[in-house]
Amino acid sequence: MRARDSDPVGTSDLVDAAADVLARLRERRPRVHCITNTVAQTYTANLLLAAGAIPSMTIAADEVAAFVSSADALLVNVGTLDDSRRAAIGLAIDAAADNGLPWVLDPVFVDRSPDRAGFAQALLAMRPTVVRLNPAEFSALAGGPPEPAAIDRFASGLHAVVALSGETDQVSDGARHAAIANGHRWMTRITAMGCAGAALVAACLAVEDDPWRATIAAHLVLGVAAERAAVVSSGPGSLATSILDALFDLDRKDLHERARVS
Amino acid sequence: MRARDSDPVGTSDLVDAAADVLARLRERRPRVHCITNTVAQTYTANLLLAAGAIPSMTIAADEVAAFVSSADALLVNVGTLDDSRRAAIGLAIDAAADNGLPWVLDPVFVDRSPDRAGFAQALLAMRPTVVRLNPAEFSALAGGPPEPAAIDRFASGLHAVVALSGETDQVSDGARHAAIANGHRWMTRITAMGCAGAALVAACLAVEDDPWRATIAAHLVLGVAAERAAVVSSGPGSLATSILDALFDLDRKDLHERARVS
Amino acid sequence: MRARDSDPVGTSDLVDAAADVLARLRERRPRVHCITNTVAQTYTANLLLAAGAIPSMTIAADEVAAFVSSADALLVNVGTLDDSRRAAIGLAIDAAADNGLPWVLDPVFVDRSPDRAGFAQALLAMRPTVVRLNPAEFSALAGGPPEPAAIDRFASGLHAVVALSGETDQVSDGARHAAIANGHRWMTRITAMGCAGAALVAACLAVEDDPWRATIAAHLVLGVAAERAAVVSSGPGSLATSILDALFDLDRKDLHERARVS
Repeated sequence: MRARDSDPVGTSDLVDAAADVLARLRERRPRVHCITNTVAQTYTANLLLAAGAIPSMTIAADEVAAFVSSADALLVNVGTLDDSRRAAIGLAIDAAADNGLPWVLDPVFVDRSPDRAGFAQALLAMRPTVVRLNPAEFSALAGGPPEPAAIDRFASGLHAVVALSGETDQVSDGARHAAIANGHRWMTRITAMGCAGAALVAACLAVEDDPWRATIAAHLVLGVAAERAAVVSSGPGSLATSILDALFDLDRKDLHERARVS
Repeated sequence: MRARDSDPVGTSDLVDAAADVLARLRERRPRVHCITNTVAQTYTANLLLAAGAIPSMTIAADEVAAFVSSADALLVNVGTLDDSRRAAIGLAIDAAADNGLPWVLDPVFVDRSPDRAGFAQALLAMRPTVVRLNPAEFSALAGGPPEPAAIDRFASGLHAVVALSGETDQVSDGARHAAIANGHRWMTRITAMGCAGAALVAACLAVEDDPWRATIAAHLVLGVAAERAAVVSSGPGSLATSILDALFDLDRKDLHERARVS
Repeated sequence: MRARDSDPVGTSDLVDAAADVLARLRERRPRVHCITNTVAQTYTANLLLAAGAIPSMTIAADEVAAFVSSADALLVNVGTLDDSRRAAIGLAIDAAADNGLPWVLDPVFVDRSPDRAGFAQALLAMRPTVVRLNPAEFSALAGGPPEPAAIDRFASGLHAVVALSGETDQVSDGARHAAIANGHRWMTRITAMGCAGAALVAACLAVEDDPWRATIAAHLVLGVAAERAAVVSSGPGSLATSILDALFDLDRKDLHERARVS
C-alpha cells in the first residue's frame, strides 16, 4: 500500500477489516447474483458457499431482474458471451442500479475478441463498483501496460475500484493503492479461479461499504486460503478442492499470520 | 415414519429396500436424462455415474425427445430457466409420458422468481412422479409452511411423492410419511447437492416401482454416503469429492449401520 | 502397435515422443479453443491447464472466429447440441481451416440421437484431423463394430486419425495402428473424462506435426496420469481430482515405467 491519500491506512488495519468482512459474510449470508460464463459457474458457486454467501446464476430474461432485485450484490463476467448473456447483463445492471446494489465487472478474455472488448467498454461506462482484470485484459481496455500509476488513473477515470490480478494483486480506487502478495502459483492452473475471486469481491461488497477495503478483503481471504490449502495439496486439482475447505475454515489468526499487504 | 396407512412398514425393511435399489442401480445401469441448470450439470452427472446410472443432459429441441425416449427416467430441474430449457422441459415431459417413464420435478429457487413459480405450478399439473423441494420452495408452491400434515396434503393433491429436504428429510405420498435424518451439515455448502440428489431419486425410480420407497432409498443412500465421506473430509470442498467415492463404494452394511429413518 | 507400414515404429520411440509432446505443451502453452458440451467444460478446462495448455470455450457467434483464429488447435464436441453450438461449430471449423489449425471431432452420444448422428456425419466430411469416439459411437457412424481392420478403413476413408476409446484404446491413421492399454476402470465413472481427453488430443496436435503420434501421446499421458492418480485415490471422485495433480507433475520416467503401447 502506498500512502498517497491524506488518510493513511495501516496494513494491520486492512487485515482486521478483512477478518471483519469474512465474519459478516458468515453471519449475514449475502445473496450474490452471478452472470458468469458456463465454465466458471460451478466453482464460483462453491467458492461463494464456502465463504458464507448464497449464489444464484440465472441469465433467463424473464427472471434475471427478480433475482438481482432480491440479491445483495451482482457479478458480471463477460465470458462465453452469447446473446442471452448480453441481454441478461443489461437487465441485471439496470436492476442493480434501481436497487442501489454494488456490482463487479470481470472483463475476461477481452484481449482475445475485439467484439467482446467493445462490449466491455460499454459496461465500464455503466459505473461498476469494482473492475477485476488481469494484465492482458487491462492493456486491452486501458490502452497500456498495468503500471501502478496507470492503474490509479484508470480507477480515477472510472470512479471505480480497479483490481489487477497477478503474482502481486493491486487494488486501487485512484487515491488509495494496495498490493497483496498472497496466493499460490498453482491458482493460475485452475479454471475459474479469477472468475470465482471476482464473485467473492461482489460478496464482500455486500457487507462492507468501502469498496476498496471490500476488494482487498476478498483478495486477502482467497489468497490466504490458497496458501493454507497448498500445504495439504499435491497439485492444481487438489488445490481447487482444498481452497474451499480452507476458506470455509479460515479465521482472523490465519489472516494476520499470512497476509502480505502493502 | 409415521404408520398412518393400513400396511405399516418397518424401518429395517425400508433400509433393505434401499440396499436393493442400490444393487439394481449398479446392475442395470439405468439411463437418466437430466434437464437441469448449468451450475449443477457436472456434479449431477458424476453423482449418477458413481451410483451406477448413466446420465445425459441435452436440452436441444431437435434431440431431447430421442434422448428421453431411450432413457429410463427423467429429471426436470427449473434452474437457470431460459427459453431453451422451457421448451426442452415440455418436449421431455411429453416424451416421458409417451414412454411411461417416471420423472422428478425439482422446482429450485421458485421462491426467488414469480415467473419461475408460475412455470413450476404448470409443471405440477403434468403429474410428476416425485417433487423434491426445500422449505422455501414448498411455501412458494404449497402456500404455507412445510408441516408434516401439509406435506401429506400437498402429496395427496398432486398424486405424487413429495420429498422435502432439510436437516431431516421428509418423504410422503399422502398416505405414507417417512423422516430421514441422515446427511451432513456441510452438504448445504456444496452447490448442486440438492439438484444431484433429485437426479438420484430419478435413477432410483428407474429400478423401483414404488416411488415412495425409491425416493426414500435415494435419500438414505446419499445421506449415508455423505456421513461416511465426512469422516475423511476437511470441509465442503473435500466432502463433495468424497461423497462420490463413498457412494461408489457403499454397501448394505453401511446402510444398516447408519440409516436413521422413522 | 501392429507394424503394417513401411516405416515401423518402436514402442519406446512412441513413449519418448509422448514425453517430448508433454514437454512442449508445458513450454509453448498452446491455446486450445473448445466447443464442448456444458457438462464437460469445467473439467476439460482444468485438464488442459494441468497439462500446460490454455483453454477457451465461447460459442457466441460474434466472437468464436476471433477466438479460434488466435488459438493453436480446436476441439469440436457435439454434446448438448443446441442451435447456438451448431452455428458455432460451423464458424469455428471455417476459422480453423482458414488458419490451418488442426481440429478434433468428438461425436459424443451419436448413438442416442439420429439427428445428432446426421450432424456428425456432415462434420466428418469437413476433414477433422482426429476423430475420437467410443465403440457405440463408432458403430453409429461407421456402420459396424470397431474391429481393428474396420477402424483402419474408417481412418483411411476419412483421411483422419481415428482414436477408439475402450479398455484398450486404439489409434489408427489407416496405415499405422497402435493399441494403448493404460488408464483405470474408474475413468468411465467420471463425467467428461473422454471429452477432456479429446481436448488433450487437440492440445497435443498443436505441438506435434504427426497427428498419429500426437494422438498416441495424449492417450499415454492421460492414461499414465490416471494410473499414478489411482494409487492415491479412493474412488471416482478423488480420481478426477488426482488425475489433474498427476498430469501437472508427470515426467518422462513415469511414462517409460507405465506406458503399455503396442
